[in-house]
Amino acid sequence: MAGSQFGKAFKISTYGESHGPGIGVVIDGCPAGLDLDLDLIEKDLQRRRPGQSKIVTQRKEDESFEILSGIFEGKTTGTPISIFIRNKDQRSKDYSHIAQKYRPSHADFTYDSKYGIRDYKGGGRSSARETAARVASGAIAKMLCNHYGIKITAYVSSVGSIQAPEIENPDAEVIESNIVRCADPSTADEMIQLITKIRKEGDTIGGVVCCVIQGMPVGLGEPVFDKLHADLAKAMMSINAVKGFEYGSGFKAAEMKGSEHNDQFYTDSDGNVKTDTNHSGGIQGGISNGMDINMKIAFKPVATIVRDQNSVDKEGKATTVTGKGRHDPCVVPRAVPIVEAMTALVIADHLLRNRQSKV
Amino acid sequence: MAGSQFGKAFKISTYGESHGPGIGVVIDGCPAGLDLDLDLIEKDLQRRRPGQSKIVTQRKEDESFEILSGIFEGKTTGTPISIFIRNKDQRSKDYSHIAQKYRPSHADFTYDSKYGIRDYKGGGRSSARETAARVASGAIAKMLCNHYGIKITAYVSSVGSIQAPEIENPDAEVIESNIVRCADPSTADEMIQLITKIRKEGDTIGGVVCCVIQGMPVGLGEPVFDKLHADLAKAMMSINAVKGFEYGSGFKAAEMKGSEHNDQFYTDSDGNVKTDTNHSGGIQGGISNGMDINMKIAFKPVATIVRDQNSVDKEGKATTVTGKGRHDPCVVPRAVPIVEAMTALVIADHLLRNRQSKV
Amino acid sequence: MAGSQFGKAFKISTYGESHGPGIGVVIDGCPAGLDLDLDLIEKDLQRRRPGQSKIVTQRKEDESFEILSGIFEGKTTGTPISIFIRNKDQRSKDYSHIAQKYRPSHADFTYDSKYGIRDYKGGGRSSARETAARVASGAIAKMLCNHYGIKITAYVSSVGSIQAPEIENPDAEVIESNIVRCADPSTADEMIQLITKIRKEGDTIGGVVCCVIQGMPVGLGEPVFDKLHADLAKAMMSINAVKGFEYGSGFKAAEMKGSEHNDQFYTDSDGNVKTDTNHSGGIQGGISNGMDINMKIAFKPVATIVRDQNSVDKEGKATTVTGKGRHDPCVVPRAVPIVEAMTALVIADHLLRNRQSKV
Amino acid sequence: MAGSQFGKAFKISTYGESHGPGIGVVIDGCPAGLDLDLDLIEKDLQRRRPGQSKIVTQRKEDESFEILSGIFEGKTTGTPISIFIRNKDQRSKDYSHIAQKYRPSHADFTYDSKYGIRDYKGGGRSSARETAARVASGAIAKMLCNHYGIKITAYVSSVGSIQAPEIENPDAEVIESNIVRCADPSTADEMIQLITKIRKEGDTIGGVVCCVIQGMPVGLGEPVFDKLHADLAKAMMSINAVKGFEYGSGFKAAEMKGSEHNDQFYTDSDGNVKTDTNHSGGIQGGISNGMDINMKIAFKPVATIVRDQNSVDKEGKATTVTGKGRHDPCVVPRAVPIVEAMTALVIADHLLRNRQSKV
Repeated sequence: MAGSQFGKAFKISTYGESHGPGIGVVIDGCPAGLDLDLDLIEKDLQRRRPGQSKIVTQRKEDESFEILSGIFEGKTTGTPISIFIRNKDQRSKDYSHIAQKYRPSHADFTYDSKYGIRDYKGGGRSSARETAARVASGAIAKMLCNHYGIKITAYVSSVGSIQAPEIENPDAEVIESNIVRCADPSTADEMIQLITKIRKEGDTIGGVVCCVIQGMPVGLGEPVFDKLHADLAKAMMSINAVKGFEYGSGFKAAEMKGSEHNDQFYTDSDGNVKTDTNHSGGIQGGISNGMDINMKIAFKPVATIVRDQNSVDKEGKATTVTGKGRHDPCVVPRAVPIVEAMTALVIADHLLRNRQSKV
Repeated sequence: MAGSQFGKAFKISTYGESHGPGIGVVIDGCPAGLDLDLDLIEKDLQRRRPGQSKIVTQRKEDESFEILSGIFEGKTTGTPISIFIRNKDQRSKDYSHIAQKYRPSHADFTYDSKYGIRDYKGGGRSSARETAARVASGAIAKMLCNHYGIKITAYVSSVGSIQAPEIENPDAEVIESNIVRCADPSTADEMIQLITKIRKEGDTIGGVVCCVIQGMPVGLGEPVFDKLHADLAKAMMSINAVKGFEYGSGFKAAEMKGSEHNDQFYTDSDGNVKTDTNHSGGIQGGISNGMDINMKIAFKPVATIVRDQNSVDKEGKATTVTGKGRHDPCVVPRAVPIVEAMTALVIADHLLRNRQSKV
Repeated sequence: MAGSQFGKAFKISTYGESHGPGIGVVIDGCPAGLDLDLDLIEKDLQRRRPGQSKIVTQRKEDESFEILSGIFEGKTTGTPISIFIRNKDQRSKDYSHIAQKYRPSHADFTYDSKYGIRDYKGGGRSSARETAARVASGAIAKMLCNHYGIKITAYVSSVGSIQAPEIENPDAEVIESNIVRCADPSTADEMIQLITKIRKEGDTIGGVVCCVIQGMPVGLGEPVFDKLHADLAKAMMSINAVKGFEYGSGFKAAEMKGSEHNDQFYTDSDGNVKTDTNHSGGIQGGISNGMDINMKIAFKPVATIVRDQNSVDKEGKATTVTGKGRHDPCVVPRAVPIVEAMTALVIADHLLRNRQSKV
Repeated sequence: MAGSQFGKAFKISTYGESHGPGIGVVIDGCPAGLDLDLDLIEKDLQRRRPGQSKIVTQRKEDESFEILSGIFEGKTTGTPISIFIRNKDQRSKDYSHIAQKYRPSHADFTYDSKYGIRDYKGGGRSSARETAARVASGAIAKMLCNHYGIKITAYVSSVGSIQAPEIENPDAEVIESNIVRCADPSTADEMIQLITKIRKEGDTIGGVVCCVIQGMPVGLGEPVFDKLHADLAKAMMSINAVKGFEYGSGFKAAEMKGSEHNDQFYTDSDGNVKTDTNHSGGIQGGISNGMDINMKIAFKPVATIVRDQNSVDKEGKATTVTGKGRHDPCVVPRAVPIVEAMTALVIADHLLRNRQSKV
């Protein structure tokens, strides 16, 4: 059973290879009557796009998309929405250097082993180009979230060992005002310098993306397995290069006492139940409690580096892989819209799933 | 759409409340012809059981189980396997103190909001008693994993700020030789002392569980969403009290360079492709590469503490919740078999799913 | 991937063998706040029960059930509802006559081939005893349907070549007033005589069950694959011994002209859109149109007969199977509550699924 | 929860409206290493195409398709296969006559009620144009079936009251040699005459399609709900205009005695277990027994007729719908490849699902 589908109520099915005809997604389960904002799709695809700044890969990709179904007179109709992004530059570059060899920490070896065949051009299905389909469908999920007053904002919180201060209420404008997408402008400069340096060395560096969900209704999440944070974790871990996930107090919770960690309840002046701290990260028992949801996602350094590395070929013989080609020195600036998209897909799914909780 | 089902090929459906008639699970999708080892189910349930040592809750639960279907002459038949664990002690204790109040950092408020009704006795469905069904079905998943030479071993790696040294090849006997289930006996003593102290204070403490999967075949995991580590992350995050997940290099990867992080390939003397380091944590591109899989799971401190805490009642009025009752001062010793069970459920599922990868 | 789960929103997972510990079902997805009517479950199980009249099998089964979870103070809580029916009479009868032989038109040969192992006692999982779990969960689905004003009524419309007149508005009391469950009392007598005769001959006879769904809201059904009648067809065809399904005009439609078949619209005095004929059977484009849904389900004669029949044993050698034991001479009287249960499960599922159709 | 996905292991997700940009399908779960036969896709799309003969609609559709992903060097890669068929003729014809009115026995009223919005151009999503995506993906499913020696052949067995003799072993060449796709050439002529006459009257007529599956392995089908014939029934009933389904002895079984109906076993000279009759239609207990599977599918007459019909508009006011436009006088000749496609999708799905039945 293959795994290119995501979601149970707001369901997406993605397809496409890096150097095939294109990348696309079919959404089955978007409710009818939602106003479609084409600009939002466009904008998020641009945020994910290669070549957008000097600190990302200079590879050229065209991100112009076509909506093939499901929209009528500017509104969703309840039928499947299909979005296609054609790959413009399919010229058969010389890929012989990776056709027979396994690039370290790439998916070449495992794809070949699993399927017995591999589209090696540009990484094929394992390429991060696949995430364009997530961003496009995520933009529609965002529209549904926005419709219900939910706001999703991600930003870069660390690059290598440079860490930005914690920001509870990140400002989307500030984030987009710097090319590394850090919510703290002064740290952004440091990060950009580090990435620039790493890039010149032909190396790469990891980083962390934070995501905050504001305006959450109470009640989203389905015990006991489809807890809201469990579905968020899966969504994030399914993004290329992600190695870790935490929400609320996260790994720090392991060092805390219950008396420190517990979030005590109160009722605010509007009559809403709130907690005075938010170690729970907006989720209790797997269900949103109305407080902001915050999470951190750790990305490893990109595997493509300009170095000679030891490897083996398809016959298992020792060989050397020589890095070349344009690549991202650090993936997190472009990961920000992907994290937002996957978050939106999970929240949209649970918004719809929760419609079933009561008679 | 409710969320008490898990798995796509090896599918489980769990049910049961803390103080209802009992807890159970139905497995749909276990292949026929597997030898059933009742002792393994029994043993894992005992490892999860309250009252097993002085550092866990002294609450009494009976863990005797009954297999209601799917087994014939000691073997699985391919039909659904149903396991039921009857709650022995259903006496109607006085739960009035939580019927109308929301315990801080518990699921009382969110369940009430989501469903409009809540079985408040002992936490109802949100009680960790639910995990008994995971352990029972996980034991059968383990048998399937074992059948294919896969070994799953979890252990406690930290309690509060006490951290055990990294252990690549944890020894199940050593782990079971101490009541905290640490793979390093000398650290175990420290942990036990800390938990004992915390318990006397009426407080609780968090911790981390590590899990190692050995003997993995190459090829498990389904790109792009059902990456093996994405499904493991969801499985772990669905366990009560978990706040963070990482595998391989984890959050440390965010600080590393590609030149440090990449795992270079070689072929060993048996002709198997291996990597000289294992920052990938046994998974590349979402697919197992045959190296050991290792992951860390962070648990928050148990929310039930012997303290007065501020809260609100069902009408939103300020009130005080007074902790009482027997509870775990630290959840990780009993979480070890639960982590193993959820791991086994994911691996069993992917073992079966991978049967479809080639014609 | 096994197939003992049914439904996407109102999901059931059934288990159990004819002569194992018992039969059961877990419902995941029943909304919270539904009043539970234990009598309705009891009543429907009694209608399905062997030994209820002289024209059904005289085998004894105990149908007392236990609800293991999901109910609190008489209401559903939104958590999984588990129902268990223990097999009382598990005495190891002598089943050697079928352990090594394949009974004609039973599932012995196919189960053995598929799974390599077979619980041969009383048919194991392939026994119609399995349908008790459908009836129990269907009774809860019926409560949900009733809650929304939907009424489901099935009855026997033919036995062998004896056919009752078409009845648009079947009366449940009339149906239950005769042991064959025919909606037309005078035809019922003929049917009973035929079944009695067939029974004395040691033979069996087929029949047809009709089912009418009244009070349907407009809008249930999910194009293009999960059309309401497609899901009803699957539900009916999944019942043991069913060979055919039709709805509305059914097979007769194949002989009709469009000008005869089309249902013209009008608006009734309450302002509801209706059709003057109902060849569409209450469903257009896969979606309910508010008119009554009617369908017919054809059952083959029971395979167990008191005759010597040619067969083969597990080694493929020719042998003779000698019919013995108590069996139903005609399955349709007991199939009526099963048809209603499966109908209710489909309608409940689509009631919940339709909550997602609009923003 | 929407319903444009089909299959559990060989999963398809379809999209597209009659007069939107196009129609398409994504297949997730086709195993890697299957040789792709583009001609087979082309051929089946041509068999479904409007305008192929004088007895089908003369509407023009372009059926040229593009494969967007999942194929590498002529073979499937195990990643999603996307196929897109662009609508060539999207000219905005005048659809005002149906924008505000509900055509009798069409899906206009139910779509509007369910979604609150409707793409009325050419029927939108409810148009039979949607079946092109079924045929394209079904062609790939057929390749998988063929790979395992399974042959699927459908043909027209009746048009109105003209019925062809039963044919056990239908010849694809004979079927394709006449424009009505009847397996019996002399009956074909009669059928063509009838359809021609009906067409001149501006009317339409129903019909029946038979389908035979040969070369079946033993063991496909998943008790108790996903019985092979239950999934086939759902697949067939999900095709536009289908009103009834039967397999094996079908509705006739309801009139038969067990002693007539039972299929007695024997072992043939090759050592295969066979039955001397095949009332079971190749399936026992929901699992294929290796005998041919045969089924009949009843189609209603097309709803579009050249007549004035009573109807209501969106406000519920009485109005008249005047038939115009090109339409099929009888749907069954073009339904033949659709029936084959849906059959192939079910069998491919169960081929893969059955890989899980044994350890």
